[in-house]
Amino acid sequence: MTMMTSASSEPPALGPLLSAIGSPGDVKRLADSELPDLAAEIRHSLITSLARTGGHLGPNLGVVELTIALHRVFATPDDKFVFDVAHQGYVHKMLTGRASRIHTLRTYQGLNGFLLRSESPHDAYGAGHAGTALSAALGMAAARDLAGEDSHVVAVAGDAAFTCGPTLEALNNIAETTRRFIVVLNDNEWSIDKNVGAIASYFNALRTNPTYTTVRRRTAAFVEKIAGKAARHLAHKMGEGAKNLLFPNVLFEKFGMRYYGPIDGHDIHLLVRTFEYLKTLSEPVVLHIITEKGRGYQPALDNPGKFHGLGSYKLEDGSTGAPATPTCSEIFGRTVTDLAKRDPKVVAITAAMPGGTRLDIFKDEIPDRYYDVGIAEEHAALFAAGMATRGFRPFLAIYSTFMQRAYDMIIHDLALQGLPVRLCMDRGGLSGDDGPTHHGLFDIAFLRPVPGLVHMQPKDEDELVDMLHTMAAHDAGPIAIRYPRGGIRGIAPSREPKILEIGRAEVVADGTDVALFGLGTLFGMAEETKLLLESAGLSVALINPRFIKPLDTEVLDTYARKCRVICTFEDHVLTGGFGAAVIEHLRDAGITTPVARIGWPDAFVEHGKPEILRELHGLTAASAVEKVRKLLG
Amino acid sequence: MTMMTSASSEPPALGPLLSAIGSPGDVKRLADSELPDLAAEIRHSLITSLARTGGHLGPNLGVVELTIALHRVFATPDDKFVFDVAHQGYVHKMLTGRASRIHTLRTYQGLNGFLLRSESPHDAYGAGHAGTALSAALGMAAARDLAGEDSHVVAVAGDAAFTCGPTLEALNNIAETTRRFIVVLNDNEWSIDKNVGAIASYFNALRTNPTYTTVRRRTAAFVEKIAGKAARHLAHKMGEGAKNLLFPNVLFEKFGMRYYGPIDGHDIHLLVRTFEYLKTLSEPVVLHIITEKGRGYQPALDNPGKFHGLGSYKLEDGSTGAPATPTCSEIFGRTVTDLAKRDPKVVAITAAMPGGTRLDIFKDEIPDRYYDVGIAEEHAALFAAGMATRGFRPFLAIYSTFMQRAYDMIIHDLALQGLPVRLCMDRGGLSGDDGPTHHGLFDIAFLRPVPGLVHMQPKDEDELVDMLHTMAAHDAGPIAIRYPRGGIRGIAPSREPKILEIGRAEVVADGTDVALFGLGTLFGMAEETKLLLESAGLSVALINPRFIKPLDTEVLDTYARKCRVICTFEDHVLTGGFGAAVIEHLRDAGITTPVARIGWPDAFVEHGKPEILRELHGLTAASAVEKVRKLLG
Repeated sequence: MTMMTSASSEPPALGPLLSAIGSPGDVKRLADSELPDLAAEIRHSLITSLARTGGHLGPNLGVVELTIALHRVFATPDDKFVFDVAHQGYVHKMLTGRASRIHTLRTYQGLNGFLLRSESPHDAYGAGHAGTALSAALGMAAARDLAGEDSHVVAVAGDAAFTCGPTLEALNNIAETTRRFIVVLNDNEWSIDKNVGAIASYFNALRTNPTYTTVRRRTAAFVEKIAGKAARHLAHKMGEGAKNLLFPNVLFEKFGMRYYGPIDGHDIHLLVRTFEYLKTLSEPVVLHIITEKGRGYQPALDNPGKFHGLGSYKLEDGSTGAPATPTCSEIFGRTVTDLAKRDPKVVAITAAMPGGTRLDIFKDEIPDRYYDVGIAEEHAALFAAGMATRGFRPFLAIYSTFMQRAYDMIIHDLALQGLPVRLCMDRGGLSGDDGPTHHGLFDIAFLRPVPGLVHMQPKDEDELVDMLHTMAAHDAGPIAIRYPRGGIRGIAPSREPKILEIGRAEVVADGTDVALFGLGTLFGMAEETKLLLESAGLSVALINPRFIKPLDTEVLDTYARKCRVICTFEDHVLTGGFGAAVIEHLRDAGITTPVARIGWPDAFVEHGKPEILRELHGLTAASAVEKVRKLLG
Repeated sequence: MTMMTSASSEPPALGPLLSAIGSPGDVKRLADSELPDLAAEIRHSLITSLARTGGHLGPNLGVVELTIALHRVFATPDDKFVFDVAHQGYVHKMLTGRASRIHTLRTYQGLNGFLLRSESPHDAYGAGHAGTALSAALGMAAARDLAGEDSHVVAVAGDAAFTCGPTLEALNNIAETTRRFIVVLNDNEWSIDKNVGAIASYFNALRTNPTYTTVRRRTAAFVEKIAGKAARHLAHKMGEGAKNLLFPNVLFEKFGMRYYGPIDGHDIHLLVRTFEYLKTLSEPVVLHIITEKGRGYQPALDNPGKFHGLGSYKLEDGSTGAPATPTCSEIFGRTVTDLAKRDPKVVAITAAMPGGTRLDIFKDEIPDRYYDVGIAEEHAALFAAGMATRGFRPFLAIYSTFMQRAYDMIIHDLALQGLPVRLCMDRGGLSGDDGPTHHGLFDIAFLRPVPGLVHMQPKDEDELVDMLHTMAAHDAGPIAIRYPRGGIRGIAPSREPKILEIGRAEVVADGTDVALFGLGTLFGMAEETKLLLESAGLSVALINPRFIKPLDTEVLDTYARKCRVICTFEDHVLTGGFGAAVIEHLRDAGITTPVARIGWPDAFVEHGKPEILRELHGLTAASAVEKVRKLLG
């Protein structure tokens, strides 16, 4: 029924070692000397395959040795690996029977770009959002202890996860919960963008300790000496060696954990021997490893920000075609920067996403009013609230799906206190290739019940600029905007911005049979529907709602009374969404005009190109026409 | 229009010093020697006044000297105090012009039981939820620095706040954000219940340091010596003294903050001198003070858990009348404990609320399957998710309003992965005296869009037990329940529990004119409405919906077709709520029967007795009758 998949028909060939790996057991059967070759083959596959599919290249190139070592030492699915964010799980996928499908990554019905429990029994836990690994893994460890089992639980988290509330909450609980727990702190000095805060400086101090290099050399020699003998018997001896790795680490010590490191995360033999030792311990441990994001691919090393996650690229030089028109993120970054230049009260806040949200534009031009608080959405919202109490105008840029983290603050701190924080939700709507962990399909439903909050969505790039100007001028309370990944109409803003009247929809075309309310990204679909209905001889009104809350009930009532059918369009789940708001209002107003609704179903939407997924789930003009015709009778 | 306020007509008299304090300036005009007397008067007022109104007695008795010292040294509203949770803000209210109204605390139109920016210009920030103070205060400090002002920002947080993600996220950002910031760590060794985790042990180690007592004595003598001279001139000398208070504190040091303490939080002169010194510093500092929760009232010292927050009590001995029937919390705690006795896979998780949720019953009887993770709702949900992946059946007990903190985890971790975590939301519905920070009026709206999540609410105490049994048996994915503060019908469960069919409503009475859908707590109001309508000669069906999601569309369609009007009742905001779900479904099914809805408006509901607030906002049988009659025409 669907028309295409974007998976290439000719997948890049796998190397000989990698193609022989059907399960983690095969990793254990390789000779020690073959492990670096396996790593090289994996890197080659990643670099060539992701050139076509796109994906999180840099993070995966950084964890090749780590992942091999984990599968060499531990035995999934009995042992459990929990990868934080799970964007670095490609290598794990390749070692657990999915290497031959790696070319389908992030394509419809192909491998997901993160981990999903439904994809493999080796995926103990799914993710896509940061900071969940330590908590979830600790739950698994507690369950194991209760059940009297003796399997291992290993949480792998980047340094950036330690700016994140849930990670820190978990850290506070580990020592009193279990005696067997391994945290791998994968320190590559980069989260999505450069890491911030006291903990980052602390890790940096450990990393740059002048004795680190010496110790690393000494340890490598030690490992060399014991290599070839049965590791388990040498665990104790290794312990003696490992103690040399033990820098006094007060932070983790205070949390009741033993700290080892930092060690070279690309020394595969050292990693294997260290894990063999750590698995014998009966105390919770942190292993601090230093890795290089993008290792093995020069363009990724040169530009770790870009290669954290990207679309397809040219294999030879890593270049990506520049898009002809600006993305919504770019327009947002540019516009807020311009607003700040005119208004000294405008400040910008990001939760570790200057690149993704394009607040990097703001950062470069107005660094003193730019705040990156780390992967800390709760704190970001509270920090913004604090600034708003002092008369500043904070623009808080957080993807729609990550705004779920700040939900309590939106209600309890922003709305209840009427604080004018500007909530700018990039990736509002289907996120496509990234899949269900990243789709921004719930924000209308969860923001709609919040008293006094204004929420809007632009129908095109010019209106995005208008709305950002409107937000700057709105000091009466919190105000939110959602805009999609990429562009809306694919045009560059071209006219003078204007400040919109709060709660006022735009009537684009009048009509008497059917009224189409095309919200934001799907306004174009409403236009298309209009043409189709008109070609069948109907008179069709077209409305750009602009505001989800407050709803323009005047325009709504007018057209609901004038027309025989209403049809709403939204890039959001139908349950509790924009169409639901329309229905609720009409029912309260006693207007019985039937309402057809186009939007996402009450289910998690898989990953894939938006065109494929829209077709699959009935978000098309043809489907709208059908629904409208049915209601017209 | 409303019938009563519960404020007593004869407020207890204030002492002579306290009654002369109209603003913080008056605190500064007192002689040093009068400060302990003022503290005594405040304690007397708190103890006598709260005996009538109820409230957070213990925490406020603990911060009397601290709050006096703060107002003695700093100058609100220019300087900003941010109290975490803000349940300890009564003393601050009394010193900022509200002493004469303290007897109206927590009563309709009286003082709020927390801080609200709308109540006084001295309330720089409102709260009610934990862990927000450091972040919000840091935002204020950043704003002050940007504006080039020189006022002070002081965040006051209990030790328990340091188990909380947002606090830890803020801690990570303080050093790089500002050079002038004072955190008072008010360490009373108790949050609502006894504190947990590594940080708590750490604070305990500081607190019990054997040199602490000596140092404290020495410092007191030092302060004695300098007392009476102008404090500002002695700031430097005091600094020398204060250095003696400085224990090496690696945890805060790692976060880039200077640590002072621990000092006696009841030594008012020491506090004043210390703040005089700290305000001269240009580095972020933590002052660790040790206080006694409930100080000055023996019953509160004897039972800090009970006196953390309570209703009215007998002044002489602190006794409170035992309620005749069990609360929903008690029934919950008892039932989950019973379930766990029969099923070794049942585990219970609380975020620092064993008393409030009554999981203390579980803790006492099955300690090895009981987990208190601290004020850490995000971690709690993730920890539960981890346990669920290993086949355990976690009951996660979190108040409705605090479940907002775990919203992202409910979507991203529980629902997306289909993990059967049982979300038990106490205080689901109006919370009454506690006011808008504590009402649980949004959970239906924010959970309804979550795919695959079951959500229900019981009409009486027996059904609460049924639903908990149903949850235990439901392994297909996350399942939620909301139940109110106190009781529902005020009866003790009396029959054998039964497992309910998911998504099946209970038709209590058949009828042909009007169908009433009375959800949970408001089922009784629906019954009342039925009687009123029947006395007017109408035939009235009465349905107990039980399930908010999935909705019993069969019963709904049947009665929507059979009857001329539907009326829904819910203890929740109308926007996106249960009635909205009914309307949405009927519209999709093409059924045009009009629907009247009873529920809370799209606004924050103030504090007060539920009867008063229901009357005020039209949640009454009379109002339902009026709406139904209007729709009947």
